[in-house]
Amino acid sequence: MAIITLTTDFGEKDYFAGAVKGAIYSELPDVKIVDISHSVSPFNISEAAYITMSAYSSFPKGTIHIIGIDSELHQENKHIAVKLDDHYFICANNGIMSMVCQQIAPSEIVEINIHDKIETSFPVLDVFVKVACHIARGGTLGVIGKTIDTIKPIKNMVPLVNDEKNQIIGSVIYIDNYGNVVSNIKHKFFQDIQKGRSFQISARNHKFSIIYKKYSDVVNFDVGESEYEGRGLVVINTAGYLEIAIYKSNNNTIGGASTLMGLKEMDTITINFT
Amino acid sequence: MAIITLTTDFGEKDYFAGAVKGAIYSELPDVKIVDISHSVSPFNISEAAYITMSAYSSFPKGTIHIIGIDSELHQENKHIAVKLDDHYFICANNGIMSMVCQQIAPSEIVEINIHDKIETSFPVLDVFVKVACHIARGGTLGVIGKTIDTIKPIKNMVPLVNDEKNQIIGSVIYIDNYGNVVSNIKHKFFQDIQKGRSFQISARNHKFSIIYKKYSDVVNFDVGESEYEGRGLVVINTAGYLEIAIYKSNNNTIGGASTLMGLKEMDTITINFT
Amino acid sequence: MAIITLTTDFGEKDYFAGAVKGAIYSELPDVKIVDISHSVSPFNISEAAYITMSAYSSFPKGTIHIIGIDSELHQENKHIAVKLDDHYFICANNGIMSMVCQQIAPSEIVEINIHDKIETSFPVLDVFVKVACHIARGGTLGVIGKTIDTIKPIKNMVPLVNDEKNQIIGSVIYIDNYGNVVSNIKHKFFQDIQKGRSFQISARNHKFSIIYKKYSDVVNFDVGESEYEGRGLVVINTAGYLEIAIYKSNNNTIGGASTLMGLKEMDTITINFT
Repeated sequence: MAIITLTTDFGEKDYFAGAVKGAIYSELPDVKIVDISHSVSPFNISEAAYITMSAYSSFPKGTIHIIGIDSELHQENKHIAVKLDDHYFICANNGIMSMVCQQIAPSEIVEINIHDKIETSFPVLDVFVKVACHIARGGTLGVIGKTIDTIKPIKNMVPLVNDEKNQIIGSVIYIDNYGNVVSNIKHKFFQDIQKGRSFQISARNHKFSIIYKKYSDVVNFDVGESEYEGRGLVVINTAGYLEIAIYKSNNNTIGGASTLMGLKEMDTITINFT
Repeated sequence: MAIITLTTDFGEKDYFAGAVKGAIYSELPDVKIVDISHSVSPFNISEAAYITMSAYSSFPKGTIHIIGIDSELHQENKHIAVKLDDHYFICANNGIMSMVCQQIAPSEIVEINIHDKIETSFPVLDVFVKVACHIARGGTLGVIGKTIDTIKPIKNMVPLVNDEKNQIIGSVIYIDNYGNVVSNIKHKFFQDIQKGRSFQISARNHKFSIIYKKYSDVVNFDVGESEYEGRGLVVINTAGYLEIAIYKSNNNTIGGASTLMGLKEMDTITINFT
Repeated sequence: MAIITLTTDFGEKDYFAGAVKGAIYSELPDVKIVDISHSVSPFNISEAAYITMSAYSSFPKGTIHIIGIDSELHQENKHIAVKLDDHYFICANNGIMSMVCQQIAPSEIVEINIHDKIETSFPVLDVFVKVACHIARGGTLGVIGKTIDTIKPIKNMVPLVNDEKNQIIGSVIYIDNYGNVVSNIKHKFFQDIQKGRSFQISARNHKFSIIYKKYSDVVNFDVGESEYEGRGLVVINTAGYLEIAIYKSNNNTIGGASTLMGLKEMDTITINFT
C-alpha cells in the first residue's frame, strides 16, 4: 500500500487539503495519506524545500510526495515529477526540488505533459493527484511526462566559502515553531571547511564559538536548569544544520531566537576560522 | 471501507478533534477519518457552509461528513442528518447545510432523535459520532431521526439581482489563507445574468472589468512576472466563485486582498452591466 | 491493528510531525496514526497534561500515546513509558503524566533505557517511535526500560481545600480555542466538598453562583438567544472540569473569557461555600 504525503501552503482552515485527500481516496481507496505541512508560508519556495528535504527520508522507499506551493501552471512554471533516492516528488519546477537534488542526484526527472486532458484552476487537485495515483499504481514517469535533464535552481540555498577557506557565508533558510533560526550550513559542510580550527559564528551582532550537539548541553545542571532558560546557543539541529536557538524558547512568552536576536529568513550568518 | 470527514471550529490545539477520532475508531476500527478543517472561525456558519460545499464532492459517494460548528443541542438548534448527492452530512440545523442544499436537492433530511439515550455536553463526540458510525455500518437515517421537509436557511448566501437585470448585489462569504476575498457569486450565475454584456465589479472603491480564469493570466510575461506581484485581480476560484485576489499575496509580507483592500466577510460586492 | 497517537508542541508548520509519521510507517506499515495536537504551547507541560488526560480515554484500549513535549534527554529529564487503564504513554518524565496518574493508578512505569543503542538529537523520532512500535508489536515494557515506582509530579494541578472545608483554591490550567478558561477543579471534586451548600466562584473581580451543565443553559429563549452572546458563565466542560466561558465567544471578534476577563494560565480561581 503506497503512501502519499502532502506539503502545501494551503493553511489549516481552507478546504483545499481536504479536497485533495478526497480526490486521492476517490482514485485509490487503500492508499495512506500523510500531512507533512500545510502551513508553509504562501509561495515560500525555500521553506518548502527545507521541509521536503528534512522530512522525506523518514518515509519508506517508494513514498510519493506531493508539494503544492506556487503550483499554478504557466510558461515559467512547469510541473515536474522527480525520482530520487527511491522516493517520488511531484511539484512545480520553481526551485523546491533544488535543495534535495543538491544532496542526492535524481535518477529521473520528467516535465509533466498530461495537461491537455485536464482543464483546471486547481492543479494540485487535478494534476498532481492524478500523477501521484498513477505512480502509486506502479505507473512509470515516462507515461505522464517527458524526460528533462535539469531543474530550476534556487538562490541562497548553498553557503559560500571564500578563496582563503577561512570564512563561510551562509544565510537563514527557516524559522521553526520555537523561533529557532536555521542556517543553510550543514554541520558536515562546516566540519569539512573547519578542519579542527577555532571559529566564530556571527549573526547580526551576536557571536558564538561553541556548537552544541543538543540544546540541553548548554546547561550546567549544578547551577540549575532554569538559569539557562532564554540563553542563546548554536546547535546541530535535527536535520543536520547549524541552528541559532534560545534554550526553552517560546514565541508567546520569552520569545525565540528570531524575535530576540532580530533574525529573519535570508539574513546572513558568517563563520570565521582562525 | 467508509470515509468520515471532520469539519469543525475546534482549532488545532484542543483535544476535541483527537477525542472524536478516538471515539470513531473505538466503534469502527477500519473506517478512514479525514480532517477537512478544524480552523473554521468559532460559530461561523457561513465559513463552514462554504468549506463543506467546496470540499465534499471530491470525496467518493457514500462519504459521511461530520460538521461540528455551533452544535450544542437546544430548542432552536436541533441536530440533523442529510443525504444529498449520495453523501451524508451530520450537523446542527443552523444554516450550515443551506448552501449545499441550494445547489442540489437533498434526497432525505432527518432530525436526529437519539438524544434520550445519551447524556452529553459534547454532542459531536457523543451524538454525531454515533450517527456517523450507524450510517457507516449501512444503517438508514430513519432509525436515528424523523423525516423533516426543510432546513434552516442562512442569510446573505445568495446574491440578489435587480428587476432590470443589470445589477448583481453579492457579498463576501470567505477570506482564504492567502487573504483572497471569495464572493457568493458563482461564475455560472454571473454568466447567466451577464449574457455577454460589459461589466464592472465593485468592492468598496476598487473596480474590476476583467475576470481571469487563473491567477497568472494577469501576468504579461514579456514584462516579467515579478512586476505583477501584489497586483489585484478578479479570478474564478477553484470552487467556481468570483474571487478578488492579489497576485502572489502573503498576509505576513505584502498583505492579501482582504487587508490591502479593506474587505471582510459580509461586505458587499456589486456587479453592474452595461 | 494498533493506534499510535501524537501530542506535541511541534506546531503545524515544521517537518517534525511528518517525519515522525514517516518513521512509524517505515517500521509498521499497517498501524493507524492519529494526531491529537501539535499546537501545545512550546514546553508547556500542564497544557500537555490536560490534553492527554482529556483525550486518551476516547481511544480503544491498547492505544499507544506518544507525547513529544520537552523530550530532550538529560540528567533531569528521563524518558518513561507508562501503562495505565490499558493505555500506553511514552514521554519525558517531566510532569506530563502526573495529571493522568492522579486519577488512575498506573499498572506499570518504566524508565526507558535503550538510548545506548541510539545516537539522536530528535528523541521523539528516534526513541519514542522505536518504543511505540515495540509496544504495537506486542512487546513488553520490561524489554525497553527498568521499572520505577513514581513519576515526577507537577505543581498547581490539584486544587487545595482549606481546613474548614469552606473554600477551594484552584487555578487556571488551560485556555481553549474559544478563549474559555479551564480550571483544575473537577465538578465531581467540587460536589464532594460542596455537600449541597451555596457557593460563589471568584476569578479576579468576576463572581459566579451558578454552574451550568451546558453553555446554552444560560439562555432564556423567550428573551432571545442573541441577547446572551458575550455573556459570562461557569459550565461543566466536556472534560468534567469547571470552566469560565463566554457564550458564543470568538477571540477574533467579541473576545473570549480569557481576554475579556483578563484570565491566564496559573491564575487563581476560588470557590467559597456558605
